[in-house]
Amino acid sequence: MSPTITAFEQSPDHGKGQARDMRIRWALEEVGQPYDVRLVSFKAMKEPAHRALHPFGQIPTYEEGDLALFESGAIVFHIAERHVGLLPDDANARARAVTWMFAALNTVEPPIVEREQAPYLERDKAWYDERLPLLEDRVRGRLNELSNRLGDADWLDNTFSAGDLLMVTVLRRLNGSGMLDEFPNLSAYVARGEARPAFKRAFDAQLAIWQARQ
Amino acid sequence: MSPTITAFEQSPDHGKGQARDMRIRWALEEVGQPYDVRLVSFKAMKEPAHRALHPFGQIPTYEEGDLALFESGAIVFHIAERHVGLLPDDANARARAVTWMFAALNTVEPPIVEREQAPYLERDKAWYDERLPLLEDRVRGRLNELSNRLGDADWLDNTFSAGDLLMVTVLRRLNGSGMLDEFPNLSAYVARGEARPAFKRAFDAQLAIWQARQ
Repeated sequence: MSPTITAFEQSPDHGKGQARDMRIRWALEEVGQPYDVRLVSFKAMKEPAHRALHPFGQIPTYEEGDLALFESGAIVFHIAERHVGLLPDDANARARAVTWMFAALNTVEPPIVEREQAPYLERDKAWYDERLPLLEDRVRGRLNELSNRLGDADWLDNTFSAGDLLMVTVLRRLNGSGMLDEFPNLSAYVARGEARPAFKRAFDAQLAIWQARQ
Repeated sequence: MSPTITAFEQSPDHGKGQARDMRIRWALEEVGQPYDVRLVSFKAMKEPAHRALHPFGQIPTYEEGDLALFESGAIVFHIAERHVGLLPDDANARARAVTWMFAALNTVEPPIVEREQAPYLERDKAWYDERLPLLEDRVRGRLNELSNRLGDADWLDNTFSAGDLLMVTVLRRLNGSGMLDEFPNLSAYVARGEARPAFKRAFDAQLAIWQARQ
């Protein structure tokens, strides 16, 4: 049985692969698991039927038989646990890969989301121009630490894992900001992720939804 | 062999159990695993020896033989996977518990941290007084959604799990803000967590470190 995920009916990023369903699509493509997609409108996301699946009224969700999950990190982990290809076999290497999953979502992503949301939430505020550089410096601090750890390695812990998959999607949120260009090894790391055939299939699938709506 | 975790030599919260080592201590107490603690200063946290363990220069870390982990979510998960008591046996219930772990750290915690950091980062800014209510409304939005999902249940998905452990520690960050009082079921949920004997042992252990330094 193929799982069903949810995605935006009209993605705010216009098909740039920034919505969090991209993470799930990429993971499913990496392990070769076909899936179905149900599109939801912004209005439907906040209604009781969708909230029963996702208490915070967001996408993506994941349904498989009588199992319903939300949170992109948890869904990627669920896929990684049940298929070969996203977590190493060695127990210690697996625990380190899980560490990078949490690091991507709890340490690196929050300041990036703050910086990304500021134009939507606060562009009309008097403080916007003065505050944006502070937000960018917080992002830069994290990027610097991540860049130092990655060094000239291809992936965060030897082989590509679900930790890299999430980290690449988190760093891609900075596309267009110019901030990644300050860290050539991180830019190359993101490009390495984007070059994977599974990434490309996932990207094309979400873009096709946007294009079909225009 | 007992694992060794790191904690603040001088916790900024003065022993209120808000530092992230509390999550690890609580998890280890729930499963009955003794542990050692190595205290680190703010200066030492940013030096190469500690950064080798934790690329972002923070606490906690977790060392067990030749395994070294960071990120409180990943460490709690590692403990939960290797011991009985923090994740359900049923595969679907286990996946849902993992979902709540990620929800606590990636959906609920970030706006709470933003609101908590504002006084440290921006109290001297002209916009501080006007912006704080906006931050509080973002937290309130998440709390409202979480409160609606929890309803009158004791725990987020039937039995206490690592998802509740993380969510309670995330919500405790609001202690003293008055915001939790607006959601009586969430206040009761946090109190239910704090009443667990394992929580109390963990809390007392971190408080003792603070008291011994005074």
